Amino acid sequence: MSNTTPTFATRIENVHLATMRNEGYGSVENAVVLIDADGVIGYAGASQQAPTHQAEQVIDGAQGWLTPGLIDCHTHLVWAGSRANEFAQRLHGVSYQQIAEQGGGINATVQATRAATREQLLTLARQRAQALMAEGVTTIEIKSGYGLDLANERKQLQVARQLGEELALTVTTTLLAAHALPQEYQHDADAYIELICDTIIPTLNDEGLVDAVDAFCESIGFDLAQTERVFAAAAAHQLPIKLHAEQITNMRGAELAAKHRALSADHLEQLDESGVKAMAASGTVAVLLPGAFYFLRDTQQPPIALLRQHGVPIALATDANPGSSPIHSLLLMLQMAATLFRLTPEECLRGVTCHAAQALGFSDRGEIAAGKRADLVLWDIQDPAELTYQYGVNPLRRVWVAGQQR
Amino acid sequence: MSNTTPTFATRIENVHLATMRNEGYGSVENAVVLIDADGVIGYAGASQQAPTHQAEQVIDGAQGWLTPGLIDCHTHLVWAGSRANEFAQRLHGVSYQQIAEQGGGINATVQATRAATREQLLTLARQRAQALMAEGVTTIEIKSGYGLDLANERKQLQVARQLGEELALTVTTTLLAAHALPQEYQHDADAYIELICDTIIPTLNDEGLVDAVDAFCESIGFDLAQTERVFAAAAAHQLPIKLHAEQITNMRGAELAAKHRALSADHLEQLDESGVKAMAASGTVAVLLPGAFYFLRDTQQPPIALLRQHGVPIALATDANPGSSPIHSLLLMLQMAATLFRLTPEECLRGVTCHAAQALGFSDRGEIAAGKRADLVLWDIQDPAELTYQYGVNPLRRVWVAGQQR
Ligand SMILES: [Zn+2]
Ligand SMILES: [Zn+2]
Repeated sequence: MSNTTPTFATRIENVHLATMRNEGYGSVENAVVLIDADGVIGYAGASQQAPTHQAEQVIDGAQGWLTPGLIDCHTHLVWAGSRANEFAQRLHGVSYQQIAEQGGGINATVQATRAATREQLLTLARQRAQALMAEGVTTIEIKSGYGLDLANERKQLQVARQLGEELALTVTTTLLAAHALPQEYQHDADAYIELICDTIIPTLNDEGLVDAVDAFCESIGFDLAQTERVFAAAAAHQLPIKLHAEQITNMRGAELAAKHRALSADHLEQLDESGVKAMAASGTVAVLLPGAFYFLRDTQQPPIALLRQHGVPIALATDANPGSSPIHSLLLMLQMAATLFRLTPEECLRGVTCHAAQALGFSDRGEIAAGKRADLVLWDIQDPAELTYQYGVNPLRRVWVAGQQR
Repeated sequence: MSNTTPTFATRIENVHLATMRNEGYGSVENAVVLIDADGVIGYAGASQQAPTHQAEQVIDGAQGWLTPGLIDCHTHLVWAGSRANEFAQRLHGVSYQQIAEQGGGINATVQATRAATREQLLTLARQRAQALMAEGVTTIEIKSGYGLDLANERKQLQVARQLGEELALTVTTTLLAAHALPQEYQHDADAYIELICDTIIPTLNDEGLVDAVDAFCESIGFDLAQTERVFAAAAAHQLPIKLHAEQITNMRGAELAAKHRALSADHLEQLDESGVKAMAASGTVAVLLPGAFYFLRDTQQPPIALLRQHGVPIALATDANPGSSPIHSLLLMLQMAATLFRLTPEECLRGVTCHAAQALGFSDRGEIAAGKRADLVLWDIQDPAELTYQYGVNPLRRVWVAGQQR
């Protein structure tokens, strides 16, 4: 091979593309994708216009569809302990109150996570990440928030980082120390916020463990003033922010998040038009979490029509967690978002590709185009709508992460 | 080995049992199961009382839980054609009416299934069966009902039989010719019922293709009188019956089914107390289908409290089909039955083991006990409630079908 003829590492041909650029799926039928040796897409488009350069490996897509690697932009994957017993108790008629009095609820997960070793947490989180990977996920955001002190928030984020190192996927970490009030600060939320702002954020950021900062702004979580203190501490360290907002009550958290140019506000069942407008103005992504909506038997849907009307990008994620969304399947979230929220299949797929990338601040992925990272999934489907419609028979055929077949 | 010392083929030890006998899970902790050379359970119980006979193979259950092989007692697995496009259209605001006028709905599936070869149908159905098997399913009921004429109902049932021969599971077939009115009989439902009773049932039964007979008794399906004619034809051939009943309207189908000693009545969202009492008196199983309830966004729950009160056995199934439950996951049905119907984890597991066996007329499976078929699943869980609570990380470790490891 001569130096004057660029050679690609991989050529994928006889395939259709859901590029996720422009409208809908950004479909290109009968396409070719060329991946260079650095794992970057060199060409993605119609086969007729494709460069004829050699490739070291040629893949026959067999008329399947190629999508960007899927992105789960909101998970709490690292925890220990099972809440199955608590779930069973509730179904047998035991009240939340009684369960909380027995030490159940989020406190049970915090105790178990604190008690677990890094190795134990890694084993548990690895299984969960692998379940997501089996459905074509190539980027996962993982939040802390079951440690609730410096050492244990660190431990959760270290496990997240380690997963990203040992598995063929990107893990991005979010510090969610402001998830709940630890029992040792039960009567002094402001002191806990101070610990987060003055100690946990600076220390773990210095250790390179934090890609973003999040908080749970809710009647049962932290109030607007406390949330704003967390945002200010994040800003002081140039860390992007996200927010759990408007899930149970309208606290105007999304507006606060928008004011601070948050990457995303998540949940949003109670969001109103003023919040939607603020998010539109700041370019904040709306991350919807149909698994939690389903599991909690919520009846108030997020304001889909308003989000569409004001052009707020909608992302979807599993919210995988032991309390309110013990469901580790991103494809099931597409099916639920369509069935429960009436999102179109195009919106669902954008929600786990381009818009999910935006919710994490990534501009190098989430679309299939020259210059983007070659995170790609080949599906044995005839129509991208099948990814949303049918569930249980996994149509995944091949996955590439930065150009390497997984 | 001497003839006087019975030797078992397999000994599973260091395991907990959800035997599904008596109340709840019928739990036996620290147990042993012995399987004889014929694939039948020879002993299942506490390890202290276990016979000490040799076994050819010893399996360490590693403190996991053993359940009976799961049984999906209501599926429509054999069909061709995708309804993904139709699903997308509905989400884009196209009405059911318009879709029906374009030839969509069940007619689209009937056309595609009629046009498909046996080999094509087998390939499609095999994938679906394998998805169920990956979750521990060892017995599947498969209905016809997308052929709607002699040749095509035969083709569907032949594919079902072939699946049972080539895969390591039991397939039981149900003739559901009375699923919908084929277009060629559009204005003469009674003539179609006559074809079913006089030709389709006798012929396909003679060919050994029919294990049971079912009908869709509904305002948009067949009425009580037509359903009763189908039941009479089934009785004339000593075939057990089942019924799709009380899904959209209360047609009193369950009472009719009970009068004819049906194995099960299925769906039942609109069932009232008089129907429940009739089912209790006849020993007819209530098969609930949470996937269809979820997918159709139904709001009327089946009468769980009445079913409990009158002691009607509750089974759960996927109802896997392209129109109203395009979901091929029995474990997801446990999660949905708990979340949406508030069944307890014990009821959910009984619904896919002992009660599902009863819904299919099997007395040789669905429980772990001496004399039962050794259809068994070993799960890496600490509490059987985990099978209902958490979804997506498949805890399945090993499966035995009639004593053979799959
Ligand atoms: Zn969350
Ligand atoms: Zn059905």
